[in-house]
Amino acid sequence: MAIVIIRQDAKIEAWKKALKERNPSIEVYSYLEDHPKEKITMALIWKHPQGSLAPYPNLKCIASAGAGVDYIFEDALAPSTVPITRVVDPYLASDMSEHVLAVILAELKNFNTYKLQQVASEWNPRIYRRIKDVRVGIMGLGELGALTANDLVKFGFTVQGWSRSKKKLKNVETFAGKSELEAFLSMTEILVCLLPLTPETEGILNKDVFSKLPKDAYVINVARGGHVVDRDLLEALDREHLSGACLDVYHQEPLPKEHPFWTHPKIFMTPHYASVSDTDSVVPQILENYDRLRKGKELLNTVNIKKGY
Amino acid sequence: MAIVIIRQDAKIEAWKKALKERNPSIEVYSYLEDHPKEKITMALIWKHPQGSLAPYPNLKCIASAGAGVDYIFEDALAPSTVPITRVVDPYLASDMSEHVLAVILAELKNFNTYKLQQVASEWNPRIYRRIKDVRVGIMGLGELGALTANDLVKFGFTVQGWSRSKKKLKNVETFAGKSELEAFLSMTEILVCLLPLTPETEGILNKDVFSKLPKDAYVINVARGGHVVDRDLLEALDREHLSGACLDVYHQEPLPKEHPFWTHPKIFMTPHYASVSDTDSVVPQILENYDRLRKGKELLNTVNIKKGY
Repeated sequence: MAIVIIRQDAKIEAWKKALKERNPSIEVYSYLEDHPKEKITMALIWKHPQGSLAPYPNLKCIASAGAGVDYIFEDALAPSTVPITRVVDPYLASDMSEHVLAVILAELKNFNTYKLQQVASEWNPRIYRRIKDVRVGIMGLGELGALTANDLVKFGFTVQGWSRSKKKLKNVETFAGKSELEAFLSMTEILVCLLPLTPETEGILNKDVFSKLPKDAYVINVARGGHVVDRDLLEALDREHLSGACLDVYHQEPLPKEHPFWTHPKIFMTPHYASVSDTDSVVPQILENYDRLRKGKELLNTVNIKKGY
Repeated sequence: MAIVIIRQDAKIEAWKKALKERNPSIEVYSYLEDHPKEKITMALIWKHPQGSLAPYPNLKCIASAGAGVDYIFEDALAPSTVPITRVVDPYLASDMSEHVLAVILAELKNFNTYKLQQVASEWNPRIYRRIKDVRVGIMGLGELGALTANDLVKFGFTVQGWSRSKKKLKNVETFAGKSELEAFLSMTEILVCLLPLTPETEGILNKDVFSKLPKDAYVINVARGGHVVDRDLLEALDREHLSGACLDVYHQEPLPKEHPFWTHPKIFMTPHYASVSDTDSVVPQILENYDRLRKGKELLNTVNIKKGY
């Protein structure tokens, strides 16, 4: 048995090294080098090229190196019956929560406007808002969404949440399903998208949803680029229904230079780095599952293939 | 008895209206209109022109419309024995604390760098820092400094404080006086200045203080422009000892367009608006003291003229 690492960024060697350091006897290959395909039992992947999972006849586990797995379902050539595992990084949720808090505060205090004013040498004080006066609505109450909601409550925000099925969270008003979406949106001043990307949620941040938000609402997308209909977002900003948006994720990454988001004065862009998995905390989880595979034990952190997350 | 309002911004009429609304029988004048000088018993001021407090023979109270009073001591022509009162705005401290939290988080998450990258259409993820890993040092533990320190502790930061005389704050390591300044600075990764401006603290953010901070420390000044030696700050940024600075206050405001702060990539500027007094919460305090003046009762929120704050 052996592991193959498949990813298109420059991190293959770093992962190989990190795995070998903890278990020198382990057999690990880059998918780019010559390697014995029939020996591979685990593929450790992150945004692999489509079809690159096909050549492994004895694959027993597809291990995503991050929390997201949507990219695996987009690959029609990926084996459909091999168990998929994802990583549960102890900091993934708290990093996301801190990022969202930072974005919200920067917006309440007009920092992006001030930064643009500074670039233009303009001195123009603007009224700020206070934490206690703001109602945040979080779409998606999974691990990341729930922690973010709880933290925002702790910091003094009024928080409400929306998810597919009803969730209970202390001091958070919760809404569920399509029937309660409009009520949720109508009271949301700052909308945070932390949904998984599934066929049901793709394009959910669209014209219809934006128009149900109150005027001057602010939109934060830290989930996936596929949640946003870019054209609809631009339109809602330009007709001044939305006051602004902060995006960390995009349909294509890096975002092509000619995309209108780059130069839009009401959009603040971060380069898909709100919360990233840390090799140090992730490697032990991969090795644990590799060991379980060897011993025929049940894998940890498997994905529900039907639900898609 | 009557009130005169002296300030150089466009807010005189708004203040007059706010006072009249709560007490229609009150006599209030703008210092710019004809008014009976000998009737004036209270001057409600904010950054008045030098010498403009002199022509009132029966003045019994100089009421600063903000928390700061340093500008009164800078006016050699102001009467030196008339009691000075300042405003204690219920939101002044919490607004400041929120602003400081917003600035620190924006720095931990590289938002200013990202905004400049966006302006240049650059996609360049950078490692972020976590709240739990950062030690914040607050200079000045008065009302604003103490609340900010307490809030930052509540949000998960490690916080230490420095003040002229020793203060006790829960979960905050405190330092006092010149003898403990170096120890305080040597462990401060993010320095927040919330000192009053006095002859002792003027120019305290200088070459000497910067060089005692650890490499890559970040400096936030939300107190007064006079605390900073501008040239020393620029030098410490340019030799890459400091990683950056966020300034809300300046020696001259608005900051002249030719000042190098405007274009410095490591400086984030906000236009003296971290925390501003709200007429609604301040007016009752002014009227209360005006009434006490009439009845010969002790004034509230007086300034210790010797200490200068």
